[in-house]
Parts: sequence; structure tokens; C-alpha cells
Amino acid sequence: MNTRFLDACRGLPVDRTPVWLMRQAGRYLPQYMKVREKCTFLQLCKTPELAAEVTIQPIDILGVDAAILFSDILTPVEPMGLKLDFVPGPVFENPVRSMADVAALRIPEMEEDVPYVLETIRILRRELAGRVPLIGFGGAPFTLACYMVEGKGSKDFAAIKKMMYCAPEVYAALMDKIADMLIAYLKAQITAGAQAIQVFDTWGGIPSPSDYEKYVLPYTTRVIAALGTEVPVIHFVKGAGTMLRSVRKAGGDVLGLDWHVNLGAARDELGPGIAVQGNLDPTVLFGTKPLIEAEVKRVLDENAGRPGHIFNLGHGILPTVPPENAIHMVECVHRLSQQS
Amino acid sequence: MNTRFLDACRGLPVDRTPVWLMRQAGRYLPQYMKVREKCTFLQLCKTPELAAEVTIQPIDILGVDAAILFSDILTPVEPMGLKLDFVPGPVFENPVRSMADVAALRIPEMEEDVPYVLETIRILRRELAGRVPLIGFGGAPFTLACYMVEGKGSKDFAAIKKMMYCAPEVYAALMDKIADMLIAYLKAQITAGAQAIQVFDTWGGIPSPSDYEKYVLPYTTRVIAALGTEVPVIHFVKGAGTMLRSVRKAGGDVLGLDWHVNLGAARDELGPGIAVQGNLDPTVLFGTKPLIEAEVKRVLDENAGRPGHIFNLGHGILPTVPPENAIHMVECVHRLSQQS
Repeated sequence: MNTRFLDACRGLPVDRTPVWLMRQAGRYLPQYMKVREKCTFLQLCKTPELAAEVTIQPIDILGVDAAILFSDILTPVEPMGLKLDFVPGPVFENPVRSMADVAALRIPEMEEDVPYVLETIRILRRELAGRVPLIGFGGAPFTLACYMVEGKGSKDFAAIKKMMYCAPEVYAALMDKIADMLIAYLKAQITAGAQAIQVFDTWGGIPSPSDYEKYVLPYTTRVIAALGTEVPVIHFVKGAGTMLRSVRKAGGDVLGLDWHVNLGAARDELGPGIAVQGNLDPTVLFGTKPLIEAEVKRVLDENAGRPGHIFNLGHGILPTVPPENAIHMVECVHRLSQQS
Repeated sequence: MNTRFLDACRGLPVDRTPVWLMRQAGRYLPQYMKVREKCTFLQLCKTPELAAEVTIQPIDILGVDAAILFSDILTPVEPMGLKLDFVPGPVFENPVRSMADVAALRIPEMEEDVPYVLETIRILRRELAGRVPLIGFGGAPFTLACYMVEGKGSKDFAAIKKMMYCAPEVYAALMDKIADMLIAYLKAQITAGAQAIQVFDTWGGIPSPSDYEKYVLPYTTRVIAALGTEVPVIHFVKGAGTMLRSVRKAGGDVLGLDWHVNLGAARDELGPGIAVQGNLDPTVLFGTKPLIEAEVKRVLDENAGRPGHIFNLGHGILPTVPPENAIHMVECVHRLSQQS
């Protein structure tokens, strides 16, 4: 049983730095693409046998120290009453714009509305059989709200910002409802067998630091607090480098760092009592093998042997990365961090 | 003669905080759209009378304290030998990928190859007649290289990163050539009458802080140093909040700040001897008038009366902002910063 990942989440010493990659089950792997030929992305998320298969692929191929449930942050949003499609980016036919829209949203019954997510977790726990721990996940309230209000990808986030600034009561009602949903959803994942939870706030770095404290932090804090201490919680906010101390207030055991911060400086600023995850620039995997090794070493050196470090990229692995470079990265992390 | 902007660039005291908006001549103004009906974006950049007309519009409409040349950062790249189109984002038909591609690039003769830029500046100096100073500008070497190598907008910057990491000699040759071009281009703008220069590094925050120091900073530093001290230089790097001290090493009189940093904390970190420009979240202009006033006050309060502050947005004004909100913002800056 490989407990490196869970030990590092708790700040305990480990024999080698544990490593996994955000989006490690994905398009850069030919084995994944072969499964994807049979079905759409959404069908893959909703078919437990296939979702479990692609979840396990990177464990075998890369030798990473944790598996992460294959799913999408928007999976539990669809049964709230929004029609989801991927074209290929996510699109909601009926975005949330008014108090009536918020009132019409329902909190899903997890075993009835997203049974495939929970079944995937149960299959994975059986099939992984303790090889590596299984991470469950969800989007943070703000990131989900961005998609639900914008209705699609956005460059300027005009719709959510207009709601936040001009209809703060609608915004608060929506965020509260999303937080309620997430608490039920993530607790159901833990009950089904998830051994850690990552909360992804992909868009949490879009607001200014003062708006983050006002409009984002309270809701994430509520979600993380409700999960208790049964399993470690990783909180990842992309673009949080200029407000690490705010983001830390949300709670959780591990703070995910993107590649815009120096990991050592971030640890100094955060102080003891919280682990960190990250933070290699994902584009480094476009580099040569010696360059990848040097960059892995740089990140490990920045951490300087402090316990409570999980190696990861600073964001998801990119679809055009050669798999051999990801394999090399994992090998370098293990080799260079080995305690003699 | 309104010298607030130039005085603040030099760190001198001013009667009110000077203010202008990045992209203040643009699509959010119906008066701009009316001019744009007659021609394409590129034709507008290349027609001095029209470019001067839209440059002056926000001076009359918003009451800002500086004019900025209407042009595009890619204007001087086209005569280097790349075919530019806007669809509507910029696209180069023949992106730079090899040492042969770099060798084929030429340094334009500014008066022959981009006469319209210099003529626009000359017209503007006559027509502005000292009402407000005129800012010229260029892209930073790294941002221009991104466009030239990617050939179009990119989400992962795979092509430039592959060149940087796997063909560093090609990357260095390209960056050197771009820096040479920029020095000639920006000096020609100063000779034609530009009273300040802003260097825009839109993509400078994409690399990690350590890669910024290695691959970006040396080239920007060379450009800024070559411009001398005749006119103030503003250096704006989007996403620089986690590496302000690195970015400052590039030189210049003013550091542009995006909205991800607390302006007061940034000034504390930078210390004396450099002015700052920014940094209201551009989406605040989607808010109500009282909210806009409160946010303007917050930014002014963060600066806490220190000399050397030019108020601006943290990035360009968004195309769907109501003009009356931009007018209100400028009015609030002047009223709330007035020295009694």
C-alpha cells in the first residue's frame, strides 16, 4: 500500500515526494484516446466501467502516487436543472441570470442523480485495491457559478460580475445553493470511498484580492468546513499567488499552487501547518528530458525537504504533451527526492 | 497644459491623481464604432487622420489626463516580413519556427515602413496642442514573440515554449531581433513627438518567475535602457504580481499593475524610486455607480497619497462597458484625489 500521498497531505515524512498530475487521465494518452473513440466525453463520465478504466491508466503508465476520479466539475450541476453540452467546451443552454432562475435550481439526490460518479468510486476502490489512494473532487462554488451564469467559457466574465456587483442578493442565493449542493456531493464521494478531496477553483483568481475575500472565500470556507477531517482536503485556486494568505483561510489540509509562485517563497509566506501541492509549469513538459529534470530539481529545491509537499503540475497537463515526458517527470520526482 | 500625468510618472506631487484607461479608444465608445464602420481595424491603424480622431475621442468624452496613440502592438511586426490579418484576433500566415525564419525577418525602416504611425503622432501633437500629453507604445519582446511564433492566439503557448526550451538559440536570435526592431520603433515614436512610452507585456506573466528572469527580462531590459531618459517609460506586465521585484529590474519610470495585486502592498514591496499605474479591476465598470466610486476610493486609499500614482484599470477597458460608467470612474478619481 502506497501511502506517500496521504502521508504528505497530513504533513508526515515520506520516503519519496509523492506525485500526481492534474488531468493525468486525459487526451495526451493514446490509451485514453482509444477509449474516447467509443463515446462522447459526457458518456465517458457517465459510464462507471469506462471512467474507472481511464482513471487507472496513468497509475500503470506514469507510476503516479494517487488516482483521481475521472469526471467533470460540471457533472453535478446538470441535475440541478441546467442542460449541459460540450462543444467541445462546456455550454449550458439555460444560464442562471435571475432570482427565479436560482429558485428553480434543485439540490440533486446524489445516489439517484449522479449514481455513475459514486459507482465509479466504488469500482475504483475495488480495482485499485490499495495500490494508490483515490482522490475525489469538485469545483469550488465560484468556478461553478461562473459556468452557470456565463453559460459558456468567457474571457471577461461580464455576466457573473454584473450579477455580483449589481444583484448581490441573487449572487449570494446562487452561491449558497451551489455550496449546499457541493457539500452533499463531496460527502457522497467520501461515503462511496474517496480517500481525499480536491476542490478546484479554476476561476478563483479572476476577482481582485478584495473581491475574493468578499465574494468567493466565504462559500469555499463553508464547503471545506462541512467536509470535516475524515479525509484530507486539497484546495487549488488558479492565480492565487498574490493572495495566498486569504486563500489559506478557506481551510483544508493542502494548498494547491500554480506555477506563478516560487514554491519556497509560498511556503515561507504560508508558514507551518499546511501542506502544499505543485507547482511545475505544465509547459515544461514540452521541453527536453534534461530540462525537465532540471526543472523538477528546481521545484524540489525550493521546497527544501520540508514535509508536506505533493509534487504536481501548476495546472492540468496539456493535451499535446508527449507521454514519455510525463513518465520522465514522475521518475525524476521519485529519484531526486529519495531519502537515503 | 495638463502635466499631471507626466509629473506623476516622475514621482512629482500633483493636484489630482492623473487617470487614463488602457484601450480608452475602443469598441465601448459609440463614437469609435462609427469610425470603425468605414474601415477595418488594420485600415484604421494605417490611416493617420482616422487614428488621430479616435485617439482624441476619449479625451473629450472621458476627460482623461493622457492620450494614447491608437495603433496595435503588431503594427511594426508586419513589415518584418509576416503577413498580418485580424479575424478578429490577430493571425500571422507564416509564423516564425526556425532559424531560417528568424534570419528572414528584417528590421523595418520606420519612416518608410510604418509612416502612418509616425504621422498619426505628429497630427496628434498638433491637434492636442498641449491639452494632455501623448503616450506612444509598443509590445514587449516576449509578447510579440508569442504572436510571431504561435501565429495566432493561444491557450497553452506550446509553440513558443517548445522553441524556448528545445531551441534556445533560435529563441534568443528571435528575441534579439525583436528587441532591435522595438528600439528603433519606439525611438522613432519619441522623435515624432510621443511624450511617454508604454511597453505592454501582455503575456509576460505566462512563464514561471524563474523563466521570466531567464527568457523575458533581459530583452525588455535592453529595450527600456536604449530608450534613455528623454521621456518616461511605463512597463506593464500582466500577471506580474508574484514577481514584482524581477519585473522592476527591467527599468522604466512607472510599473503598470494589474488588479490581482493590492496596490499598497505592491508599493511597499517595490519601495521608493518608481511610480505605479493601475489598478482597478476592469469588470468593476460593470457595477453600479456607488460601487464604482467605492472601488475607486479603495484603490486611492491603498496608494495612501504617495506621489507617483497614475490611476488606470488593471487591464484594457472591456468592449461591453457602458461609457457612462467610464466617465463616472474618471470623475471619481479626480474628485476623490483632489488636494484641498
